[in-house]
Amino acid sequence: MKLDAQWITGFVDGEGCFHVGVNPHSEMTAGFQVLPEFTVVQHERDVQILHALKAYFGCGVVRVNHGGRMAYRVRSKKHLLERIVPFFIKHPLKTKKNVDFKKFRRILLMMDKGVHLKSEGTEEIRTIAKQMNRGSSR
Amino acid sequence: MKLDAQWITGFVDGEGCFHVGVNPHSEMTAGFQVLPEFTVVQHERDVQILHALKAYFGCGVVRVNHGGRMAYRVRSKKHLLERIVPFFIKHPLKTKKNVDFKKFRRILLMMDKGVHLKSEGTEEIRTIAKQMNRGSSR
Repeated sequence: MKLDAQWITGFVDGEGCFHVGVNPHSEMTAGFQVLPEFTVVQHERDVQILHALKAYFGCGVVRVNHGGRMAYRVRSKKHLLERIVPFFIKHPLKTKKNVDFKKFRRILLMMDKGVHLKSEGTEEIRTIAKQMNRGSSR
Repeated sequence: MKLDAQWITGFVDGEGCFHVGVNPHSEMTAGFQVLPEFTVVQHERDVQILHALKAYFGCGVVRVNHGGRMAYRVRSKKHLLERIVPFFIKHPLKTKKNVDFKKFRRILLMMDKGVHLKSEGTEEIRTIAKQMNRGSSR
């Protein structure tokens, strides 16, 4: 199945999620691990769509989510920065999800500079991450 | 906001719904009223998307749904047959929602021939309508 860039933007406006987990982690200098993640979840009957997204972006994995659902997931910072972020810069989301995307991008750029490895940086990232996915329609 | 046809297809693949209600109705000859409906529901923060869809298709209404949600809704058989159906024939949905769309279209074409006004026709429509929106991801 071949996907069109505008179709992907529309589909992700509906079904996609940009999320940054900030979890306590004793082995990290700043005491926290920062985990950015782009996901699209679908009922298993539409798993072929998730495989088509994976093929389009050339990264990520398709895995079982829960409750008969499957997820396309990209967690690699390199792939997020080099493939996912540039795509949604070139083809902007039209819903308020674009606000989350911009925060997601900002955190990734901070991480790229190593900001998340220092306490102050982690605190700033936590503040931005907390403002994401609020009032989600899910 | 100007929408692209492929963006709309992707968004409707995620968020749209093709539904046919078949309700008992004493004033109808066949004893049932057949109500086809195309809807897209969004959180109120993205109501501008629903207005953009209404402007694109040149039909339908944007109304309060429930729980802080808004709905774009097309119920006119004429508008469904002349605007919504041709759009999704030209720009096919990529998810299994396309199976529902085809049933939706079949019922509309039957209604256009007046099939729903006879008991046998209503029974056939009820059978098709029951097979729609099964295993929905919602």
